[in-house]
Amino acid sequence: MVGPRWGAIVRVAFLGPEHSFTHMAAERLFPGAEYIACRSITEVFRAVEGYEADYGVVPVENSLEGPVGETLDNLASTMLHVYAALEARISLVLAGRRGAPRLYGHPHALREAARSLDRLAPGVERVAVSSTSEAARRAAEEGALCVCSHRAAAAHGLEVLAESVEDGPNYTRFIALAWRDQPERGERTSIITAVPDEPGSLYRLLEPFASHGVNLKMIYSRPIHGKPWHYNFYIDMEGSRLDERVAEALEEARERSLFLRVLGSYPVLRGP
Amino acid sequence: MVGPRWGAIVRVAFLGPEHSFTHMAAERLFPGAEYIACRSITEVFRAVEGYEADYGVVPVENSLEGPVGETLDNLASTMLHVYAALEARISLVLAGRRGAPRLYGHPHALREAARSLDRLAPGVERVAVSSTSEAARRAAEEGALCVCSHRAAAAHGLEVLAESVEDGPNYTRFIALAWRDQPERGERTSIITAVPDEPGSLYRLLEPFASHGVNLKMIYSRPIHGKPWHYNFYIDMEGSRLDERVAEALEEARERSLFLRVLGSYPVLRGP
Repeated sequence: MVGPRWGAIVRVAFLGPEHSFTHMAAERLFPGAEYIACRSITEVFRAVEGYEADYGVVPVENSLEGPVGETLDNLASTMLHVYAALEARISLVLAGRRGAPRLYGHPHALREAARSLDRLAPGVERVAVSSTSEAARRAAEEGALCVCSHRAAAAHGLEVLAESVEDGPNYTRFIALAWRDQPERGERTSIITAVPDEPGSLYRLLEPFASHGVNLKMIYSRPIHGKPWHYNFYIDMEGSRLDERVAEALEEARERSLFLRVLGSYPVLRGP
Repeated sequence: MVGPRWGAIVRVAFLGPEHSFTHMAAERLFPGAEYIACRSITEVFRAVEGYEADYGVVPVENSLEGPVGETLDNLASTMLHVYAALEARISLVLAGRRGAPRLYGHPHALREAARSLDRLAPGVERVAVSSTSEAARRAAEEGALCVCSHRAAAAHGLEVLAESVEDGPNYTRFIALAWRDQPERGERTSIITAVPDEPGSLYRLLEPFASHGVNLKMIYSRPIHGKPWHYNFYIDMEGSRLDERVAEALEEARERSLFLRVLGSYPVLRGP
């Protein structure tokens, strides 16, 4: 539980459908809330922007597959903040009707379990759908196979044929979006920034973080739509923007950037 | 045409099926070759590694969707080099049977055309498949819709319902893989490297490139499988590793890294 909720029930939009991993993350971050299933990551952002939800929960990075592009793009194009994060180990099961010719899964889940599926379900057609819980729903409807969570398999009455089918330790970081962040509890700070296309520009941007001893936990570049081969950088660092050395590093980096927006300083919960 | 082929026909593996954008890139890079369609990017790497093909052609980065994870992971896990690159503008068409309830596309293509599809095919179920040409094949087989190239639509006898359905200018960079690179023609050099998880490590890695005036064109971090929240960095820079300042920057960066492998120095073609 990361937010104040004296009296009113908080409304939390999440990437659905129900029983998705993001649903579980939303329950962990905001227990006892009213949960609103959205059909896409963009829809979660829209729900919070339009005050239909107080918070939104979406995946932002997976330890096998990297960043979630749709989340990064929406962080750049909206003014929402990161209010909290949750890192959870993801365990996938193979479920459904044994011997079925088709298998549903989220594209990331299919890649994360690729080698296990070659062995467990050789020659089975793999169909990518929008989420692991959608995969379970389809498998139940059509008598097919799927890769999903234990909970989604149970919710759709599917038999679990194999556990832990992911090819390696697999963590996903989820973030809670809101109109405000929690700098006072900020163990991590996230920014979006961009630098000129010239020698040394990224190096000069990073200099203040090195000189102030701020540890960068993640740096992703993401193409800017409409400007081929130009990039925004998404950078996570340890500490809050209320910490003096983080604040000074951010101020100096801002002067060396084309723009620099602080997405938030926030606590990071560990799961499941 | 980038490779020598006096006498023998070169064999070029590509991410198929036939008429994919990668097929067109392979024809542009190696005209008159024998083309071998592979079912996955990993299979293309395997074909070159196992001498079943002289070269392999795969997509590596898209200007809307960013890097192709499967290509980056295989570059890290094999010893193949980048022999040449091609940057091509991708134009997508909506094709197939008007009014069909289902639409096939590569996940990247579906995202790249998302807004156009909301308008042109509202409420139509979107199903992700392994390539744009596979989408065309499915659409022809089932009387469905698809997002693909003009050429794939024509090859499968599909009616083109709308042109240029991508939401913005959309370029993809393809690379040709081989056991050797072309440093003497290298206008670009690619490396994979990693740094310790401590403050300033990435900054110190980039310092030699800045001090030698080497312009970095791209930097992507990619999770290391089995080591959650640890990353390899994929860096493209201008110039050949035969250029003195590139060679010196690489040597100094190597000393500051956990490891540094030069993927190759190679020419970049622009097309189509």
